[in-house]
Amino acid sequence: MQSREGDGLGISQPEAMWGGAFILVLALAVALAESVAPAERKCQLSGLWRNDQDSLMEILVLRDNGDFQGQYLTRVTLSGGCAQISPLRGTQQQIGEEGWPTFAFTVRWDKFSNASTAFVGQCFVDAGGKETLSTMWLLREAVGSLEEDWKATRVGRNVFTRKRTTKGKILSNLSPPCEAVSSPAP
Amino acid sequence: MQSREGDGLGISQPEAMWGGAFILVLALAVALAESVAPAERKCQLSGLWRNDQDSLMEILVLRDNGDFQGQYLTRVTLSGGCAQISPLRGTQQQIGEEGWPTFAFTVRWDKFSNASTAFVGQCFVDAGGKETLSTMWLLREAVGSLEEDWKATRVGRNVFTRKRTTKGKILSNLSPPCEAVSSPAP
Amino acid sequence: MQSREGDGLGISQPEAMWGGAFILVLALAVALAESVAPAERKCQLSGLWRNDQDSLMEILVLRDNGDFQGQYLTRVTLSGGCAQISPLRGTQQQIGEEGWPTFAFTVRWDKFSNASTAFVGQCFVDAGGKETLSTMWLLREAVGSLEEDWKATRVGRNVFTRKRTTKGKILSNLSPPCEAVSSPAP
Amino acid sequence: MQSREGDGLGISQPEAMWGGAFILVLALAVALAESVAPAERKCQLSGLWRNDQDSLMEILVLRDNGDFQGQYLTRVTLSGGCAQISPLRGTQQQIGEEGWPTFAFTVRWDKFSNASTAFVGQCFVDAGGKETLSTMWLLREAVGSLEEDWKATRVGRNVFTRKRTTKGKILSNLSPPCEAVSSPAP
Repeated sequence: MQSREGDGLGISQPEAMWGGAFILVLALAVALAESVAPAERKCQLSGLWRNDQDSLMEILVLRDNGDFQGQYLTRVTLSGGCAQISPLRGTQQQIGEEGWPTFAFTVRWDKFSNASTAFVGQCFVDAGGKETLSTMWLLREAVGSLEEDWKATRVGRNVFTRKRTTKGKILSNLSPPCEAVSSPAP
Repeated sequence: MQSREGDGLGISQPEAMWGGAFILVLALAVALAESVAPAERKCQLSGLWRNDQDSLMEILVLRDNGDFQGQYLTRVTLSGGCAQISPLRGTQQQIGEEGWPTFAFTVRWDKFSNASTAFVGQCFVDAGGKETLSTMWLLREAVGSLEEDWKATRVGRNVFTRKRTTKGKILSNLSPPCEAVSSPAP
Repeated sequence: MQSREGDGLGISQPEAMWGGAFILVLALAVALAESVAPAERKCQLSGLWRNDQDSLMEILVLRDNGDFQGQYLTRVTLSGGCAQISPLRGTQQQIGEEGWPTFAFTVRWDKFSNASTAFVGQCFVDAGGKETLSTMWLLREAVGSLEEDWKATRVGRNVFTRKRTTKGKILSNLSPPCEAVSSPAP
Repeated sequence: MQSREGDGLGISQPEAMWGGAFILVLALAVALAESVAPAERKCQLSGLWRNDQDSLMEILVLRDNGDFQGQYLTRVTLSGGCAQISPLRGTQQQIGEEGWPTFAFTVRWDKFSNASTAFVGQCFVDAGGKETLSTMWLLREAVGSLEEDWKATRVGRNVFTRKRTTKGKILSNLSPPCEAVSSPAP
């Protein structure tokens, strides 16, 4: 089961709404698990994330080999034009039982941009269970010739934190209509 | 003659060596095509590429939406350990008839690394038809805590040129056994 | 009150504490000045700054042509070794009356590192007068040969905010003895 | 005396034009020195350098503490405007007898740009005595607000090789008049 519970309580999942008693037991179990099993503090990429620029990212499918897919909704664009939900694909390094995974992904800015973006990052979990994705990215613009190649690549940093939400494909529902969006890129 | 077979025109491949007359006609046709159809100078990502560090990259499948897959064989690694052929996945921006596409891709360094790498770049074709992929990359290492996050990301540049070859899945055949490889990363 | 003394207005410094009445008048004057003169919201590089990793930077001399000097005390080092106060030199772009300046500077890590670091950034002032230096940096390590050159450069981001203090060369006084420092770089 | 001329023959220096016999002796001496003293293969930053984009850089003064000054003439600019010879300042790490130094420097783009640039790099000498400066740079543009900060920083790489020349302040003489320059930045 691919369940992501925000910062770890799992209380708000639809299937968990069976009664207060169950929830109490669940909360206790989770708390217990966290105290005894640091392995439980593993960072899960799947879920909905928001960065310091209010861009949203949802990672939906995470395969056994580490490959994942999802969607990205940027709030900022180079052109200042309207952004749309864009598909992302990437991969997470398969590390052993210990440590937090590094990952890399690309976003395909359909239609509204001739630029390409790639992120690399690592997932961290603090003592309180709060997950952070610390990423850096390169944004490559199209230029007309090799002579202009020198100026085509921008670099930056973004920090994502998990946005709590119920399960399912949410980015589609959350995203404002294109008219309401001010601009697009990392 | 600077011929690029890309994903399979195979015009100048050994099996096409049927006679001087044919080749002459072909050369004329190509020259004609290039003079009338600049669209013919489009850059095709698919095929086998080699970079300035002798790393090899083969892009095999290029879908209509721009997504592509392939394999990467690095010659250099952070650890100095043995590299293996690693899967890559990425996407190329869908641009119109004009211009050369930008692209981004990630490599999954199976087993031999806990680092993640992402490239962004653009394909260029010069007047003589020579294709160049100008790329920059980020290499993210795993660190033990957010306090060490500042030092986790390396940046660099690589230029790839097309490596002439016959059609098919070649990287697997070309690559030396792991013992012969000195080290792995971009 | 968010007061920045920069290079020497000294308005709110201890020696200016001559009486409540005076201070009140002064505060009014400052508020008035800020409301009527947005040019007053110019960003001054000089002074003491602290970044998100608790590294300290003091910019002491700012010349008319934009060149400046100062000192840097990093809290983090690649080697994990002990950092020392290190000289920095840089330059700020001379822009007109409007806008906030960009700048670039280098740090000479005396004795304790064979790496070189350069920062670029821009100074911002928010509506409340709070100054922020948004910077990115490259950290170059020495490698033994051109073959290893690909892995020598790290990239990162740091945000500095002004650390309130009295006037003078303070970094020297503030900095803990070398034994108390855990590690060194941006 | 701070003179090193490219790949090390020193033949073209005015003061060396004393006669064939002297030159022969000198050449022998140099060859001998190179064969016996690998320390002679130290990389000296001072002199005139040209990069892969035909930008020129002259490093004139190199102090004992590693600080240096010089001039930069870029051939490319973000704005496409006219570049002018710009002052550069930086520092070289003081390393021991062995190894090649890393360095960092900034360029002040007087008047024609509101951007700031910083380079980091390392000097390499190959077996034949050819010197190479492998550098990466960040180029920071001014943006109007912190919201636009994400897109302000470009990254790139430049490789410089020594341009042979006679001694003295040459960049000033070499540089074409501003009208002849097409564009400016790294």
